[in-house]
Amino acid sequence: MNDTDLSALIDRYCAVWREPDSAARASLLEVVWHKDGRYCDPTAEAVGRAALNNLIGETLTRFPGGQVMRLSAVDVHHDCFRFTWTMQLGEGKQLPESIDFGRLAEDGRIAEIVGFFGLIGGE
Amino acid sequence: MNDTDLSALIDRYCAVWREPDSAARASLLEVVWHKDGRYCDPTAEAVGRAALNNLIGETLTRFPGGQVMRLSAVDVHHDCFRFTWTMQLGEGKQLPESIDFGRLAEDGRIAEIVGFFGLIGGE
Repeated sequence: MNDTDLSALIDRYCAVWREPDSAARASLLEVVWHKDGRYCDPTAEAVGRAALNNLIGETLTRFPGGQVMRLSAVDVHHDCFRFTWTMQLGEGKQLPESIDFGRLAEDGRIAEIVGFFGLIGGE
Repeated sequence: MNDTDLSALIDRYCAVWREPDSAARASLLEVVWHKDGRYCDPTAEAVGRAALNNLIGETLTRFPGGQVMRLSAVDVHHDCFRFTWTMQLGEGKQLPESIDFGRLAEDGRIAEIVGFFGLIGGE
């Protein structure tokens, strides 16, 4: 997969997080998310499209109108990638810039996203 | 695994990258690295302890006396972690701060490290 295609895939993935309609999310996830794909972040874990769909729904209930946007380029090597993102909350507010690490499935869909909140902190 | 133990594990892992003796590295890797552990970064991939040992040896040939040091705290959730590191090259020089994502094996050793060079760039 070339960089342009990967960036487009990640942007489609971020768009799923902006979609308030569950059926529409389900259709989008069929395109971008492997059927056994695993999502996890410090607060949640979801395996498979239905579980991720539910998690996104819960998140949009918590942050109504939240707009997940990719911020960085998508950096890739082997089957692995990373990018940063935020969620715009309206009124100029947004969640801290955070980083997702991911892995591609052989079929070109996303096999895994592991998210960490915030950019790396010092010690 | 608690944060202190995980930080100690990662520090032992970084110490392997500072060890110029192959036999000493092999002993250290038995402690910290799962026998089937996978390492990859933009320039290399190594599966298993012997392959990682060889890769570290090649790296230390390229950067004699290079001192890999952890820079950030180790951030962890589920079986996943991240931290940043650099390699000190002497004379005040060092490689750019870079980020490793990793995964723990059930036996508490490291199952995977996926490295990316540099902190995330803008687009």
